[in-house]
Amino acid sequence: MQLQFWSIGKKNEAYVAEGIALFTKRISHYYKVEWKIIATTKNSAVLSAEDLKIEEGKIILNNLQKDDYLILLDERGKNLQSEELAKVLQKRNNNSTKQVIFLIGGAFGVSDEVIKRANFNWSLSNLVFPHQLVRLILAEQVYRACTINKNEKYHHV
Amino acid sequence: MQLQFWSIGKKNEAYVAEGIALFTKRISHYYKVEWKIIATTKNSAVLSAEDLKIEEGKIILNNLQKDDYLILLDERGKNLQSEELAKVLQKRNNNSTKQVIFLIGGAFGVSDEVIKRANFNWSLSNLVFPHQLVRLILAEQVYRACTINKNEKYHHV
Repeated sequence: MQLQFWSIGKKNEAYVAEGIALFTKRISHYYKVEWKIIATTKNSAVLSAEDLKIEEGKIILNNLQKDDYLILLDERGKNLQSEELAKVLQKRNNNSTKQVIFLIGGAFGVSDEVIKRANFNWSLSNLVFPHQLVRLILAEQVYRACTINKNEKYHHV
Repeated sequence: MQLQFWSIGKKNEAYVAEGIALFTKRISHYYKVEWKIIATTKNSAVLSAEDLKIEEGKIILNNLQKDDYLILLDERGKNLQSEELAKVLQKRNNNSTKQVIFLIGGAFGVSDEVIKRANFNWSLSNLVFPHQLVRLILAEQVYRACTINKNEKYHHV
């Protein structure tokens, strides 16, 4: 199984870059893993929030394979405990899913088409985080999930 | 009103240090703010988890002033939305609270005495985060709360 992290927006800011690199490297000991930072559309400044989401949604949907398992990070999604995220990943692995994609949407979220396409909608917290920080939290939680599934001690330290 | 962030454990790791510095500096435009990284007790390696919490608890309680408003970061605490955290801070400010302390406990949490002393128990998320990352998330959320209370645009970008 491969993991991909997709995020719409700018490259990693300095304050999160080291942590993202750290946890991504650790994840790579469990799964092949890759980040895809997707630039927003060139005309984003002149589009309405709704149109921007539709344009970004087209880019996302074009990049998806039919059998990709898409986990959308979504404020209206389901709150999970770390152990529950681990179970989601374990189940995908057991079901021979080829690729799990974690998607962080754009500044205004994602289009209805992307929401419909998502296999799972996950809310990290009731708090609102900046998208840069979401990337770091996501990488740490996915690493944590890997260690939980292998019964390693990181989660309980 | 002054804000203090107390955290039991080691100094900031490189991967969170820049972000914590960034958001702490931003908070300083709203409130006087200070971090206190409290080293665990010297004999921590030979203590049981329970005894360690009691020893750390004594250090914490000794450092508290009687009218400090203590917000304990606690997995069993209340989940808040960012706007709700902003209201907690606003209410303290309106009530002429001198000092609000956000406390991140030690590796095994905090003692029952500290839990009893806390004025508010706050859970960031259903997810478990490493304490280093909790420091960064906390700094960002308190900065966000400051901007929400001033009706500034950071929260909605």
